[in-house]
Amino acid sequence: MSKASRRQFLANAGKAAAVTAITPFLASAPAAAAANADGPFIHHVYFWLKNATSKDDKAKLVAGLRKLSSAKTIAQFYIGQPAPTNRDVIDRSYAVSWLLFFKNKEDQDAYQTDPIHLKFIEECSSLWSRVVVYDSIDV
Amino acid sequence: MSKASRRQFLANAGKAAAVTAITPFLASAPAAAAANADGPFIHHVYFWLKNATSKDDKAKLVAGLRKLSSAKTIAQFYIGQPAPTNRDVIDRSYAVSWLLFFKNKEDQDAYQTDPIHLKFIEECSSLWSRVVVYDSIDV
Repeated sequence: MSKASRRQFLANAGKAAAVTAITPFLASAPAAAAANADGPFIHHVYFWLKNATSKDDKAKLVAGLRKLSSAKTIAQFYIGQPAPTNRDVIDRSYAVSWLLFFKNKEDQDAYQTDPIHLKFIEECSSLWSRVVVYDSIDV
Repeated sequence: MSKASRRQFLANAGKAAAVTAITPFLASAPAAAAANADGPFIHHVYFWLKNATSKDDKAKLVAGLRKLSSAKTIAQFYIGQPAPTNRDVIDRSYAVSWLLFFKNKEDQDAYQTDPIHLKFIEECSSLWSRVVVYDSIDV
């Protein structure tokens, strides 16, 4: 574990004392062999729907994501929608947020070609007009 | 806990069996009083630097975020940078990713006016040219 990751881990561990039942992600990850391989790989996807106001299409996309969540290399997932916050810097134009934690980049790469993922794209890609992805690793 | 949240929680709990030491976020959150109050509030901020290639400015921003992480209502945080992935849908133009989990919207609201947060903005806002925030709650 790199010095920066260890600091982040310890800080989150400290916060766990204040909030019940939070365990820092990958608390027992093995020491990293490559740079940044020791922190989680965070994959955050925002979807905009073709039919932006369609509750049915949003529900179909969410149902598709729930199926997709069974992809075996996903360590943790959160399906979200815009919160009721509204400031200039906030982009709340998207319909659905899909936040994934992977153990490392290799697991994320495997997810990209997982048949469950390919099936999701086949079944659901007609629903969205735009997708933006932010992939991040430890600094 | 709503039906959807419970499903997400159970799914993540299942995944925890495969990946050591992951506990789903807020596993023991009390039943929600209001809609969507029972899942985490996810606040994901992306920063672009004025001096996009300055390692010093990036390090200053990261140092500022580490100080900011002590804000007491933050349940969990991850400081990131673009991963080495590169596809059309991926935005890798940002410099630093700041992902926060709050127990609920109230905790996020408190964070916005926390003196530690205001101090961070005072000390670090000269470093960035653009900030985009995505706030999300359970669907």
